[in-house]
Amino acid sequence: MESRLAPEWSVSRWFNTGAETPTLASLRGRVVMLHAFQMLCPGCVQHAVPQSIKVAETFVHADLVVVGMHTVFEHHHAMGADALAVYLHENRIRYPVGVDAHEDGHAIPLTMRAYGMQGTPTLCLVDRRGMLRRQHFGLLDDLRLGAEIATLLAESP
Amino acid sequence: MESRLAPEWSVSRWFNTGAETPTLASLRGRVVMLHAFQMLCPGCVQHAVPQSIKVAETFVHADLVVVGMHTVFEHHHAMGADALAVYLHENRIRYPVGVDAHEDGHAIPLTMRAYGMQGTPTLCLVDRRGMLRRQHFGLLDDLRLGAEIATLLAESP
Amino acid sequence: MESRLAPEWSVSRWFNTGAETPTLASLRGRVVMLHAFQMLCPGCVQHAVPQSIKVAETFVHADLVVVGMHTVFEHHHAMGADALAVYLHENRIRYPVGVDAHEDGHAIPLTMRAYGMQGTPTLCLVDRRGMLRRQHFGLLDDLRLGAEIATLLAESP
Amino acid sequence: MESRLAPEWSVSRWFNTGAETPTLASLRGRVVMLHAFQMLCPGCVQHAVPQSIKVAETFVHADLVVVGMHTVFEHHHAMGADALAVYLHENRIRYPVGVDAHEDGHAIPLTMRAYGMQGTPTLCLVDRRGMLRRQHFGLLDDLRLGAEIATLLAESP
Repeated sequence: MESRLAPEWSVSRWFNTGAETPTLASLRGRVVMLHAFQMLCPGCVQHAVPQSIKVAETFVHADLVVVGMHTVFEHHHAMGADALAVYLHENRIRYPVGVDAHEDGHAIPLTMRAYGMQGTPTLCLVDRRGMLRRQHFGLLDDLRLGAEIATLLAESP
Repeated sequence: MESRLAPEWSVSRWFNTGAETPTLASLRGRVVMLHAFQMLCPGCVQHAVPQSIKVAETFVHADLVVVGMHTVFEHHHAMGADALAVYLHENRIRYPVGVDAHEDGHAIPLTMRAYGMQGTPTLCLVDRRGMLRRQHFGLLDDLRLGAEIATLLAESP
Repeated sequence: MESRLAPEWSVSRWFNTGAETPTLASLRGRVVMLHAFQMLCPGCVQHAVPQSIKVAETFVHADLVVVGMHTVFEHHHAMGADALAVYLHENRIRYPVGVDAHEDGHAIPLTMRAYGMQGTPTLCLVDRRGMLRRQHFGLLDDLRLGAEIATLLAESP
Repeated sequence: MESRLAPEWSVSRWFNTGAETPTLASLRGRVVMLHAFQMLCPGCVQHAVPQSIKVAETFVHADLVVVGMHTVFEHHHAMGADALAVYLHENRIRYPVGVDAHEDGHAIPLTMRAYGMQGTPTLCLVDRRGMLRRQHFGLLDDLRLGAEIATLLAESP
């Protein structure tokens, strides 16, 4: 099994970041969990987002960065940045969340295309060297996800 | 314990209805479960709405009418009718859902005020005579909810 | 749909009862939920027994009698009355539980045979007139179970 | 934080083993998850044992050994080896399970005492060098447990 370098993110707007917005390049050396979601996708809202919040809490003292990516590929008018801001506030999401950037004429946003994601929710794990070690469409069991994250964390920087 | 007549609904727009839109008056003789929600309220999305969908399925052959009421009292710009349409579609909600009507200058919509609801989710049970027999803010256990609905169904029309 | 009279119970020993031990005849006029289980049956222990405990709590003020029946039809040596006593104590089961009586040479005990139960867990609902209105092998959803109990409770004594 | 060498097990009878029965000494070089339980302890039966079964399945291709220890410290008559055999069979537990050995006059068995366990369920993680790296009374979240196991697995033998 070989992995490729995780494609850099294309983000039109960030939430929960300071002046410096995150890039994969700037996070090199750390483990990154990227979870792609849509705020009106039931599987995301009911399972994947609560799991991501729990990951962020569980690994708060570990060298893991949790990042959300709002990869809207349908019903764009109902999931704009203003609506997302409310969603993040109501769900008390504190980690950085980017809005996946759209190119004119394409329903599917740029980051989603670069990763070849099939839909939402999709979970990606990027190792300390920036390699995309795991990409999963759908839900991952907590036991397995915890193990996969810890495995990457255990690798030497 | 006494109950009062359930206040009539004030709805600016209905979804999942035909030409005839539902009123409490027109449903007299049947049992009505009204669930008030907001599409970006986490407790609604994760628990109350899935429970209401399950009630509608479980009692499909009973003389029960399930009605949703979108009682938006905060973040109005993010939960407009277009966004609600997407939410209903994505969550496969087939029963009638009304948008609680707003009066200029009031954040809290009319039906919500008439019932004195404290927030979302709120569940109301109306008996065959139109009396408001139960109003509950928060979540109700399935066992108890099933029993309360059946108790009202067992009353003679 | 017709129901038959619920067969009387054959019990070799009762737990959680006083001097007067329950019979279906003595409970006529009340609704009875009988749950048949084995203390080493995983589906019983993980789902049916906790549900029965919850039913007893939820309907504590209603005219419902919850009764457990230990219908051991396999591994008899491991599920004797002494072991059952520990099980009831550890799980804080307070309602009456009977040990289904065995006849020499039959693995399947008498009550289980009289009801024609297919296995454990099995749930039976007996109405106020003593009729067996529901017999279900496996698990029943809380919403449906609550409704079925309340429907029988609503029938006039 | 320092850890001590995990005490060797004192077992009066093994289930699910071949001619060679497991010892901590013989497992040196591998990661070991020991879960101490009692077959009539509700928290064990409803949560800890199902979690251990899931761990064994999830890490089936990893260098992890899951071992159960039946640490009976109360109601000894109801949880003998014959009853345990039925319990293991009914719950389809395939990994090795030992009966913690009793010394005359002591309610608490030897392994339980050697580890200073407070009750059941208790979960222990032993690293490749035989050190007791984690001992937890009660339930551990799946996400955290998966991570802790993987962290030990990632250590060089």
